[in-house]
Amino acid sequence: MNQDLIEKIIKFRDERNWDQFHNPKDLAISISIEAAELLETFQWSGADLEKSDKLDNMKEEIADVLIYSILLAEKLNLDISEIIEHKLKKNGEKYQKDKAYGTSKKYTELR
Amino acid sequence: MNQDLIEKIIKFRDERNWDQFHNPKDLAISISIEAAELLETFQWSGADLEKSDKLDNMKEEIADVLIYSILLAEKLNLDISEIIEHKLKKNGEKYQKDKAYGTSKKYTELR
Amino acid sequence: MNQDLIEKIIKFRDERNWDQFHNPKDLAISISIEAAELLETFQWSGADLEKSDKLDNMKEEIADVLIYSILLAEKLNLDISEIIEHKLKKNGEKYQKDKAYGTSKKYTELR
Amino acid sequence: MNQDLIEKIIKFRDERNWDQFHNPKDLAISISIEAAELLETFQWSGADLEKSDKLDNMKEEIADVLIYSILLAEKLNLDISEIIEHKLKKNGEKYQKDKAYGTSKKYTELR
Repeated sequence: MNQDLIEKIIKFRDERNWDQFHNPKDLAISISIEAAELLETFQWSGADLEKSDKLDNMKEEIADVLIYSILLAEKLNLDISEIIEHKLKKNGEKYQKDKAYGTSKKYTELR
Repeated sequence: MNQDLIEKIIKFRDERNWDQFHNPKDLAISISIEAAELLETFQWSGADLEKSDKLDNMKEEIADVLIYSILLAEKLNLDISEIIEHKLKKNGEKYQKDKAYGTSKKYTELR
Repeated sequence: MNQDLIEKIIKFRDERNWDQFHNPKDLAISISIEAAELLETFQWSGADLEKSDKLDNMKEEIADVLIYSILLAEKLNLDISEIIEHKLKKNGEKYQKDKAYGTSKKYTELR
Repeated sequence: MNQDLIEKIIKFRDERNWDQFHNPKDLAISISIEAAELLETFQWSGADLEKSDKLDNMKEEIADVLIYSILLAEKLNLDISEIIEHKLKKNGEKYQKDKAYGTSKKYTELR
């Protein structure tokens, strides 16, 4: 994650004195709320899995999910690249290339 | 967002031939599912807004939210820095510094 | 909502002395978590909007969403039939039959 | 669940010819969206776990969660009392009274 961008997000928060509201629990709640707003783009879309006419909405909601995730990571003193690399490693063990190749099954159902 | 990291995530997906499942609607669903797993860290925590004993879980779930958000952005050919900067600008108009200072009210309730 | 059933749910909670954890905020969190577990049934289903092979999972997750919703309503001293009838009335004003007929548009986009 | 009320909900849907949009996947998505709107009542509430000033909002969002859950159950030909009783039975096995008494631990952590 680009450090400049992270600092812009922190600055936005601090210029409004919002850090006082940003406890981890409410930040996690906020990520869920924004994720649901992203999902709303696809409500009633049926088998249209793209909804290209709503791309502008999607952009904004993905951005909101990312912004709150970055704010939570910052609050918890986490390095974003580090936690992602760590998770990819762990996922790689659960979903080994040969067993997981071309299947969407959950790791608990793979053999 | 660090380009190297994005490429690692894409590589992880492609080594498993998972791109075929990654339509925007199911990626948006996946972001909501991971956001809820993050939220589960705080279930029944009451007024404990930190849950420091669950930090390892949080790390993994924040990483999952970020990974799927990055995969959705990639699928839609979005530049992550660009959509975040665009959203900060828009939020800055809705939440002007002087009016939004030190309040958690929604922009529709500010004046 | 059948009063007998509500009482069974309350009894289940009280036999485990769980009322102490059931504040409204954590119950709302729990509803979101169960809703996401229901959604997981459809993760990666693409244009298959039914997932008939996962009906047993769906049953359990719908039940969990209902159970926590009933517990939250009870905690807030709400009558379930009353709040549903009130909401249907309000929705009927936002989505008038002639304007909303056969369209999935949001009320803000109807005219 | 009161049969009259269920029929009112079905009638509301059918008078608008909305059944065509109500596939299980989009109904599950809708439940998640409404659950997140309920959660929004508690966003930034911190250690205030009640938010009594937002009770009217809560009522409406709980009603929306219930309405979509009932619509999904109807779509899948499920009897609501039956699936709830079945789930309580299953939960009773995972959370036995003596082991689960007064603890909010997940069943995987109980012994």
